Amino acid sequence: MRFRYYWEDFTPGWTFENGPRSLDRDQIVAFARDWDPQRYHVDEQAAKETPFGGLIASGWQTCGLMMRMMCDGYLLDSACIGSPGLDEVRWLKPVRPGDALTYRATVLEQTPSQKDPNRGSVTFRWELVDRAGEPVVRIIGRQYYLRREPAR
Amino acid sequence: MRFRYYWEDFTPGWTFENGPRSLDRDQIVAFARDWDPQRYHVDEQAAKETPFGGLIASGWQTCGLMMRMMCDGYLLDSACIGSPGLDEVRWLKPVRPGDALTYRATVLEQTPSQKDPNRGSVTFRWELVDRAGEPVVRIIGRQYYLRREPAR
Repeated sequence: MRFRYYWEDFTPGWTFENGPRSLDRDQIVAFARDWDPQRYHVDEQAAKETPFGGLIASGWQTCGLMMRMMCDGYLLDSACIGSPGLDEVRWLKPVRPGDALTYRATVLEQTPSQKDPNRGSVTFRWELVDRAGEPVVRIIGRQYYLRREPAR
Repeated sequence: MRFRYYWEDFTPGWTFENGPRSLDRDQIVAFARDWDPQRYHVDEQAAKETPFGGLIASGWQTCGLMMRMMCDGYLLDSACIGSPGLDEVRWLKPVRPGDALTYRATVLEQTPSQKDPNRGSVTFRWELVDRAGEPVVRIIGRQYYLRREPAR
């Protein structure tokens, strides 16, 4: 299987942007019923009585939206072979139905594998940014990618 | 509205455990189609050709399962008012269909709000642990809770 993006392509400073996309009320409630049924994610009336003042998306769903925009943007055409995890997740602003969010990725570090000449890891900053230009979710995370050519 | 758990209840060392639960093949594929359609999450055949050797759950879905077990365990009966984010997410082992996972929470820190006498934050370690007793997901995260009684 051949891909468009390999480890070599994600050099520090590489950036990508797509969107905007949004979550509607039904998507927010459906996701939350399955995975995070807190009152401010599933119940519009109850949400009004909380500090959020209305329905907001589960933080996990905002991560899901970010992941989906990453997939559609470049990841599905990449040699990504998983992620060991994230070093930071910040939910900076509540995400409400219809909020238009742009996905923005930036490569922070690119590290060859010490053990496997066919692989490397990449550390990214991933953000969803609202119409005002403010990040609503910011994540520092790492992924493993196959190399286009093995290290010598 | 009255809850069972308030900020005061989450003292350092507090622990909670429930489960096990698992994700089946259809749940894994359905979640991934919406939020993370990488080949090893949506396509059993293609997954065999990857380093995972078969279908695995999106890491985001393992976080969702953890969140749902937290909700059902105590969070829906708590005065939680959101989360500013996570300091660490580790996807330690792939999660496959049917893997029986136990949820385990431990309070690491309990901090009164400096600004609001009615609130405080709690830092937790949240884990999903497999049948062998090994963590498959480990998260360090923070949540805000209302206090039962305002600070004096």
